[in-house]
Amino acid sequence: MKEIQKLYDRIIQRANINLRELEFDVNPYVQNVIPFEQMIKFYAFFGISPHHRLNFQFKNSNLAGSYFLGQCRITNSLLYKSDIRGDELKRAGDLFEYQGFEIPVSRDEEIEITDSLLIKTLVHNFSHDPETLEEFFIKDTISMNYANIHGAPSDGCFLGSFATVDLTTMRDSVIGNFAYVQAGEISHLDIAPGTVWVRVPGEFNFIYTHPQEELNHYIYFKAGIAPQGQLIDFVEDRKEAFQRVFDVVNIEQSIPVPSSASLDRYAVSKSPIHIGENVLVSQRAFLQNAWLGKGANAQENCYIINSRLEGCNVTAHGAKIIEADMGTNVFVGFNSFLKGGPDSRLTIGKDSIVMPHTIIDIKEPLEIPAGSLVWGMIKSAKDLKNHSISIEKFSKINGGLSMGNMFFEGDGASFIAGFQDRIHHILEANGAFFNGSDKKGHAQKNQYISFNTLQPYPEGPRKGLYPTIVIKP
Amino acid sequence: MKEIQKLYDRIIQRANINLRELEFDVNPYVQNVIPFEQMIKFYAFFGISPHHRLNFQFKNSNLAGSYFLGQCRITNSLLYKSDIRGDELKRAGDLFEYQGFEIPVSRDEEIEITDSLLIKTLVHNFSHDPETLEEFFIKDTISMNYANIHGAPSDGCFLGSFATVDLTTMRDSVIGNFAYVQAGEISHLDIAPGTVWVRVPGEFNFIYTHPQEELNHYIYFKAGIAPQGQLIDFVEDRKEAFQRVFDVVNIEQSIPVPSSASLDRYAVSKSPIHIGENVLVSQRAFLQNAWLGKGANAQENCYIINSRLEGCNVTAHGAKIIEADMGTNVFVGFNSFLKGGPDSRLTIGKDSIVMPHTIIDIKEPLEIPAGSLVWGMIKSAKDLKNHSISIEKFSKINGGLSMGNMFFEGDGASFIAGFQDRIHHILEANGAFFNGSDKKGHAQKNQYISFNTLQPYPEGPRKGLYPTIVIKP
Repeated sequence: MKEIQKLYDRIIQRANINLRELEFDVNPYVQNVIPFEQMIKFYAFFGISPHHRLNFQFKNSNLAGSYFLGQCRITNSLLYKSDIRGDELKRAGDLFEYQGFEIPVSRDEEIEITDSLLIKTLVHNFSHDPETLEEFFIKDTISMNYANIHGAPSDGCFLGSFATVDLTTMRDSVIGNFAYVQAGEISHLDIAPGTVWVRVPGEFNFIYTHPQEELNHYIYFKAGIAPQGQLIDFVEDRKEAFQRVFDVVNIEQSIPVPSSASLDRYAVSKSPIHIGENVLVSQRAFLQNAWLGKGANAQENCYIINSRLEGCNVTAHGAKIIEADMGTNVFVGFNSFLKGGPDSRLTIGKDSIVMPHTIIDIKEPLEIPAGSLVWGMIKSAKDLKNHSISIEKFSKINGGLSMGNMFFEGDGASFIAGFQDRIHHILEANGAFFNGSDKKGHAQKNQYISFNTLQPYPEGPRKGLYPTIVIKP
Repeated sequence: MKEIQKLYDRIIQRANINLRELEFDVNPYVQNVIPFEQMIKFYAFFGISPHHRLNFQFKNSNLAGSYFLGQCRITNSLLYKSDIRGDELKRAGDLFEYQGFEIPVSRDEEIEITDSLLIKTLVHNFSHDPETLEEFFIKDTISMNYANIHGAPSDGCFLGSFATVDLTTMRDSVIGNFAYVQAGEISHLDIAPGTVWVRVPGEFNFIYTHPQEELNHYIYFKAGIAPQGQLIDFVEDRKEAFQRVFDVVNIEQSIPVPSSASLDRYAVSKSPIHIGENVLVSQRAFLQNAWLGKGANAQENCYIINSRLEGCNVTAHGAKIIEADMGTNVFVGFNSFLKGGPDSRLTIGKDSIVMPHTIIDIKEPLEIPAGSLVWGMIKSAKDLKNHSISIEKFSKINGGLSMGNMFFEGDGASFIAGFQDRIHHILEANGAFFNGSDKKGHAQKNQYISFNTLQPYPEGPRKGLYPTIVIKP
């Protein structure tokens, strides 16, 4: 295991050099988080289908338990149970529009992960940085459990547990636990845990910060200890159910799935389950007593339990919905944790937007009216008042708004339009609007994926490292 | 499935062009033998270990259910449940000795399979042809169920079911069902089914032919029908046991295996089983109530049932031993079928050589004395007299010997010495002589293999074909 230890040391050192101005040492965070022995225990896997570009290059890396789709190049990196989905990348010949510029994409974009350590991290989407159209790079970066790197190139960064960076190029920055950043371009920032920040320079700026002490009950992680809290417990409690899914080569589909929908063979589904037309359930999603109406989706690391989604619902990467009824077109953002109970169901009316990284954890029934924008931490009807507003009202903001820990400045209509466009795009990409012949998306394309497994050297100095692997059409 | 059909047609055509002088049409033989649907059903798999060279290149091929180890390059070929073991190839810098020449090997030898269709075929060993040291080629060739291509480059050939070509370069030839050829170099020959031919030009020539009608009970295969007979039934009856072995990702080892031995995770073992020191059990071997003493081996497609092997036994690719007791150092050649019964056990004394493709099928107990050379078809003690001789006696032949269907001419001592050297080499290569530190062979090296699976395009025009895959250290 000499080589893998050297590689690990090298990655840590490179991240630390990048983060020296922030006086941030990644060492104590990553110590003992993954024992090396775990890194040889799980196979990596990749998908092949006629509907996805194919270009994998793996070199001098450990890929334990990680999944790859599309176009990915991994070099000198340790990827532990991460999902690298290169299936929404830009293609050669595309025109990338940016502030009046139309920039041609010269070659197919690739996700390029170099000298990085990603733990249970989701990497997806395309990079929105006009400076680097063909390379969605992740370099000298360390990300912890359940982080999302979503269309966000990264150089020299540390992402805490359940952190999400979305459509943002980041350099030499630290993103705290459960922080969400969508800010275009950032550099040398140390984002506090529980921050939810959405900014389009010149248009608007939305910022919310979870109360630190309350957040610690859900996710707490600092130097020297492993991530802990309710979110970690929740996921760990359901870990075993995934075991069987990964242990067998071919799994039998026990649930009826319409021909326009797809239920990934690496998802867990516990009856009763209803899968409607055009539904997409991604790998590592967990469904238990769940009703998914037409065009609803459950993305990677989502949990939908004792809940009903009426249709065209987006459940973004890492979102959890428990004991809830969601109207049509409800959007639930990344890593949100919406937890009702058997006697305290959560109801969210149609067309509502639940901001990324929202926590709703209620002991009494709660009804959120249709067309709401919801954020922050909500434990009661009282909290809801301070952490929601009607989308209509929000659209009329021109100037600023402050509610509790939330500050907004700029154009409310632009903020809402941005979200709605994006939700529409997500539904479209996922195949929610498929009409039997046109508008195919992931739900239709993912039905025809075959899976392949890879394992590392089981012994010798390269133990734990994978050989060089190149896969092309 | 258009592409795979085109590839199939192209392979058939190329083989037929090569075999035109023999007026042999492969078409009716291969029709319906594998439905295309089967070709997308099974994953291919390859091994990675620190003890094996690693160089795989797969291009425009179907590899359904096939296994690869070492150095293999597969192009425009259909390989159905075949084993391609490139783990005994020559290495750059080796000196190849041939009739007084010492020829340096300029680069690592590779198995190169091009424009060929191999069905349940084993490819192993290195090519012994001094004209092609670095390329063990199999080109424009079709081989049927349970054929062995053992160190035998092939260009434009057809191998019938259970045919073996061993250390022989073959061109434009047809090898009949259950024929065994070890003859250095052959060209434009049509070898009759059931022929067993061992020749070293200028030294000796051994030839035996199974009685056609009796052989038909064991293996019968002609144009227009699928291979049938006792041998096929025997294998088909045990097919299901392999299902589980291939269906799970990690299999638990239920049988104690000494640290110097290896029992492949793709072998079937049904208790009680004893695995001694230095024992090698290869993938697709089948053990049931089997006792394997120190240094014994069971190679690919071997079946050892209700039998005891005392130690240092070679059970070559495809050999079957049922209800038998084998002394130490007994060699059982390729595809031999040794079948005793509960009340009619077969006993073979130590140091005996059972020639490749021998059939022993008895209804009464039979004891073969130590130091025997055995061949042909034996169903009784009377048959044994005509199909065996003491090795000592055979070594004294100088001129010729004829017994029943067997004809020998040349130097008996040279024939026996050749066999014994080879048996010694096989035991050595398989690790039978490992002393705890030196003389490692497959038994010790194969413990540290990790397995990887590959699958073809599941849909679209390339359905059934695998993408281009390159794997290097």
